[in-house]
Amino acid sequence: MSGEKTVTACLLIIGNEVLSGRTQDANLQYLAQGLNGVGIRLAEARVIPDVEATIVAQVNECRARFDYVLTTGGIGPTHDDITAASVAKAFDVPLARNADAEARLRRHYKPEDLNPQRLRMADLPEGAEIVENPISKAPGFRIGNVIVLAGVPRIMQAMFEGYRHRLAGGRPMVSCTVVAFVPEGKMAAGVAAAQAAHPETEIGSYPFIRDGRLGASLVIRGTDAAQVAAATDAIKAAVRAEGGDPIEES
Amino acid sequence: MSGEKTVTACLLIIGNEVLSGRTQDANLQYLAQGLNGVGIRLAEARVIPDVEATIVAQVNECRARFDYVLTTGGIGPTHDDITAASVAKAFDVPLARNADAEARLRRHYKPEDLNPQRLRMADLPEGAEIVENPISKAPGFRIGNVIVLAGVPRIMQAMFEGYRHRLAGGRPMVSCTVVAFVPEGKMAAGVAAAQAAHPETEIGSYPFIRDGRLGASLVIRGTDAAQVAAATDAIKAAVRAEGGDPIEES
Repeated sequence: MSGEKTVTACLLIIGNEVLSGRTQDANLQYLAQGLNGVGIRLAEARVIPDVEATIVAQVNECRARFDYVLTTGGIGPTHDDITAASVAKAFDVPLARNADAEARLRRHYKPEDLNPQRLRMADLPEGAEIVENPISKAPGFRIGNVIVLAGVPRIMQAMFEGYRHRLAGGRPMVSCTVVAFVPEGKMAAGVAAAQAAHPETEIGSYPFIRDGRLGASLVIRGTDAAQVAAATDAIKAAVRAEGGDPIEES
Repeated sequence: MSGEKTVTACLLIIGNEVLSGRTQDANLQYLAQGLNGVGIRLAEARVIPDVEATIVAQVNECRARFDYVLTTGGIGPTHDDITAASVAKAFDVPLARNADAEARLRRHYKPEDLNPQRLRMADLPEGAEIVENPISKAPGFRIGNVIVLAGVPRIMQAMFEGYRHRLAGGRPMVSCTVVAFVPEGKMAAGVAAAQAAHPETEIGSYPFIRDGRLGASLVIRGTDAAQVAAATDAIKAAVRAEGGDPIEES
């Protein structure tokens, strides 16, 4: 895209509660949009269980394949919070008490409340840099290109908002959405032709049924606003060619 | 778990629209619960882009690692619907017009509406068996241990409900939830001891803030109801030991 490298990220959602269907993940969508805002493209996401060997293998596979790896979940005080220990193992460094993280916990908790389980939250991979947690004080961290965040959405969001300026992205994607009350199968040839004529953009077709009417949202994405605008015009023409009235939602 | 093998599944969510943050996935949670109901454990889920090489690589990696692979998305009539072609490539078989699938489309569409793009939905990997789509007629299919479903939740659900009895599972997981208005860090040692005493079960701790009060949901899961009940009693005792009043939600 315009010769500039696309900066990619992979999200590892660590949590048995998502895989069991107990909890609906709410972090992927937030991070996808937040990363895009700093010019980083979420290229893959994986939901994996709270199993050390799995976390180690996936962190190592993904940190080699993507520019950034973000993780959510597993940084609390309980026995099933094994993200820090697993990431330390992935990087083959010791898990060690981080003095800065410990100081934060000591400021947050009364001495009688800071039990060994809570103190354990200050054990981070050696060499990790703290990612501030303004809410619960259980620190996230960054080591190499891996950024470890909390799983609770409100906390994860506060951590990400405080850290995002530290991430180095490329050009952000811009997008435009054209809504048409025409079945996507009817427009498919015209849409494919528009995609072929505008290969620098990505055109997605997402069918829907709204108020009993069949239609599709056609989403045009790219890093160049002029190319996106030209592809959008081609899509509108394809909609009109099938008798539809394209609605631009941008 | 009682000597019986755990039957596992991996879900591949194929869709740029989820990775861009445009759409919130709604299929993972439904399938996690639906698979559990037939004794299959969702062991991993991945959200991957509409890119053939990626789909081929992930299908091949995951079908070797899990008992079942389910995919959602990409079976419609448009240029970005590349799941069938990619799965054919993963299995190294030709993509071929399936007579049965074509007959369904011909019954569903008026002849003048059945354009080449829509007919393309009848092109399936050679040797695939159709998975009925009672809503839009774009067929899903199964080849080997890979089951290909639609991405639109209402359609995906109808396909899964019609097919789930064909899946061979093990014993379903049973679970019990104990809610406690005690910070999880305060109970952490007691909960860890309960987990250690009941290794056949999995105990997860999920913190929350509800009506301004800190608490945690403690979820006990296992395939043996008696073991889950015993672990649940141990968790309740751990909550009471910290002055809490455990509420069983099951």
